[in-house]
Amino acid sequence: MAHARAHRGRTVRTLEELIRIPSISAQPARAGDVRRCAGRLAELLCRIGLERVRVVETARHPLVYGEWCRRPGRPTVLVYGHYDVQPVDPLGAWRSPPFEPTRRGDHLYGRGASDNKGQLCAHLAAIEAWLRGAGRLPVNLRFLLDGEEEIGSPSLPDFLRRGRERLASEVVIISDTRMLGRGRPAVTVGLRGLLNLELEVHGPWRDLHAGTFGGAVHNPLQALSELVAGLHDRDGRVVVPGFYDRVRRWSERDRRVLAEAAPGDEAILRQARVAAGWGARGWTLHERTTLRPALTVNGLGGGYQGPGSKSIIPAAASAKLGVRLVPDQRPLEVEQLLRRHLMRATPTTVQATVRAGSRVPPVLFDTAHPAMEAASAACLRGFGARPAFLRSGGTIPAAGMLRRALGAPVVLLGLALPDDGAHAPNERLHLPTLWQGINTLIWFLLEVARLSPATCAPR
Amino acid sequence: MAHARAHRGRTVRTLEELIRIPSISAQPARAGDVRRCAGRLAELLCRIGLERVRVVETARHPLVYGEWCRRPGRPTVLVYGHYDVQPVDPLGAWRSPPFEPTRRGDHLYGRGASDNKGQLCAHLAAIEAWLRGAGRLPVNLRFLLDGEEEIGSPSLPDFLRRGRERLASEVVIISDTRMLGRGRPAVTVGLRGLLNLELEVHGPWRDLHAGTFGGAVHNPLQALSELVAGLHDRDGRVVVPGFYDRVRRWSERDRRVLAEAAPGDEAILRQARVAAGWGARGWTLHERTTLRPALTVNGLGGGYQGPGSKSIIPAAASAKLGVRLVPDQRPLEVEQLLRRHLMRATPTTVQATVRAGSRVPPVLFDTAHPAMEAASAACLRGFGARPAFLRSGGTIPAAGMLRRALGAPVVLLGLALPDDGAHAPNERLHLPTLWQGINTLIWFLLEVARLSPATCAPR
Repeated sequence: MAHARAHRGRTVRTLEELIRIPSISAQPARAGDVRRCAGRLAELLCRIGLERVRVVETARHPLVYGEWCRRPGRPTVLVYGHYDVQPVDPLGAWRSPPFEPTRRGDHLYGRGASDNKGQLCAHLAAIEAWLRGAGRLPVNLRFLLDGEEEIGSPSLPDFLRRGRERLASEVVIISDTRMLGRGRPAVTVGLRGLLNLELEVHGPWRDLHAGTFGGAVHNPLQALSELVAGLHDRDGRVVVPGFYDRVRRWSERDRRVLAEAAPGDEAILRQARVAAGWGARGWTLHERTTLRPALTVNGLGGGYQGPGSKSIIPAAASAKLGVRLVPDQRPLEVEQLLRRHLMRATPTTVQATVRAGSRVPPVLFDTAHPAMEAASAACLRGFGARPAFLRSGGTIPAAGMLRRALGAPVVLLGLALPDDGAHAPNERLHLPTLWQGINTLIWFLLEVARLSPATCAPR
Repeated sequence: MAHARAHRGRTVRTLEELIRIPSISAQPARAGDVRRCAGRLAELLCRIGLERVRVVETARHPLVYGEWCRRPGRPTVLVYGHYDVQPVDPLGAWRSPPFEPTRRGDHLYGRGASDNKGQLCAHLAAIEAWLRGAGRLPVNLRFLLDGEEEIGSPSLPDFLRRGRERLASEVVIISDTRMLGRGRPAVTVGLRGLLNLELEVHGPWRDLHAGTFGGAVHNPLQALSELVAGLHDRDGRVVVPGFYDRVRRWSERDRRVLAEAAPGDEAILRQARVAAGWGARGWTLHERTTLRPALTVNGLGGGYQGPGSKSIIPAAASAKLGVRLVPDQRPLEVEQLLRRHLMRATPTTVQATVRAGSRVPPVLFDTAHPAMEAASAACLRGFGARPAFLRSGGTIPAAGMLRRALGAPVVLLGLALPDDGAHAPNERLHLPTLWQGINTLIWFLLEVARLSPATCAPR
């Protein structure tokens, strides 16, 4: 820990250097930047003392891998993080450019500062502290960095299938989730799944003059609005037939336990800065974002969006839909339900097409596993408080993939604060929380070392 | 006419030169281009022999004016046209760049080729043919070119108010409407009005992570979709209370007369290339675009519209609405009805704002006026056929303004073909129609010369 404290300046400089690389995995034009970021990370992994470091080619963006496996008889920990970032628009809403890391007070601003370059730097610093400070790690360790997390980790399953034995690990740790607040750590034990769909509506063969044709031709933007509006009823319930059929029912006791740790409605409204909540009645806001599935519109566009006006009926319009799934919903099945509903709801005056993107199932982890206790003990040391065991409304595709491929427990020990602004303009990292997080991760490796490999063997 | 035929090459070169100037009035960044286009037109007006030519400053884009008033005792004709053009997106849909005039077969492609640079060049050529071929015009003439037609001619009323006496004219002619087809001329005797509104919906203070907040916060894109979808009922009727109250009722006889000249449903569907029509039942498609008002969505956008996906609940979303009005609807009154409806329909979970753009009342012209007969006779000479007297679903703000300011009849003798693609990508002009149009306009001036000023005196 002394080593980590002494090298804080370098940790920040490393993070700043990574933020400067616009590794947006969703945008083909940024593929070179994603690759550049992977190369730089491989250098960093070598520098801190990891071995067998390599950049692993995939169909799209590379993975970066390194390991240190010189403690036979000790458990092996796999650390997963991602170095790709979300797109940055609306660019005008950023106070400082997204790829120019900027320090304001205790915060470092920039795209990826928190999600996930800042959190992967915490692991880098913790591993370095052991290897450079103590000369060795207390466990065996594998470090796997994904360049496609923000687009659903499409290449990860193939990598895991091919390397299942080489990757054998007893514990997986991922820092890509939120704490409850400063000094209030949390371990996330459930993640929603994700199904991304793009709905396109086509009307006339080209944009038509709105005066000449207005009133006689169905406007694709209007038809799309009708389809999107028709996905929910007035009470915020998704009306797609069968959508809720597989949603697991929770006992009153389960809900009470969850409510004790979870943020209340007021905290959630304060974070979003909205006056009133929305959604299915009979559930708290936290339950609506964790126990219940949600269908959100992430983008919608068509026609003229520039200044002033343009009198057209556009030829087409499209919407990006994201469905957050909960146990025991299945992505492919929900996709089929949605396709069927949308096709039935599309009037004969326009044509609709649906394209699917990510399909990630929801996951729930076993809170009774000894690795969870190791995380709890580490938080007490690093943050001075035991973590809350929380559900998250978000999705980390790798979490379920790693559990399935390795049969190992996955510890989601996130270092992000609720006001970090992941995915939003002015994303930032709270540096004092980073320092506490690094200490926690240093302790975590020691706590896992105390477990015998048998204790946390694949189940 | 011999002069016009001999100078066809120069007419095309002049038009190409004008098309090259991207005079998009709606986009502030193009203000310099609009001004450059005005300057060039002033030079052209001087070159063909008009006098007192000047570029008239306004609050935004200039007007261009020139006249030739050397025939005392003869009627005065005011020719109105516009040199500003519509925006060009979607740029990817253009086969050749919009501001690089391109000849393919009998067509000249480019933004403004038809609307309205091509048609104003027809007037330029007709006036030049008289002044350079015959040495003088058969009438007195004023040529007024607007740089703000596509944004609702906001500066024109003030110019007309200040210059009402200097502009005194017995007949106004505007070529900015459509023919029925090649060799099938039309005089438009009714125009719909226009009310442009921009509806914005605001939700959370910034884009939120769709996983963390999805299901608990009303999504502005969804709320906007609900508001837009809620503007029409299932039968395509606008549900805004009071919207149809002032819509004039037409007798069965009026409708039969209109139907005789108007394109049938099939022709309209063929032009739009859609399989089925849409809109209020009980009206033909042509009636829906002329006798009936229409509310269209010209653009809608919010959230992420780039490649791939971005998991956000956007902070805001907005829609551009265009309402085409018919007699006796009043723009300001309809605006108030829409504002009231939208505010009532906005749920408490989001905030909505409405901004108004153009407000243009609908107009109907008197088909019995002698100037209409002059247009009919000119069409017979120039096109070999008498024109149909048609309603148009479009809006030319200047038409009503000029009639009100000058008390003169307005002849809408348009030279655009239904497949010219005004406002759309690959806008084009059919050159053989241009040549017939120039001849028609040459004849029109002669036909008007035969009227005594008293015949067509202000009424």
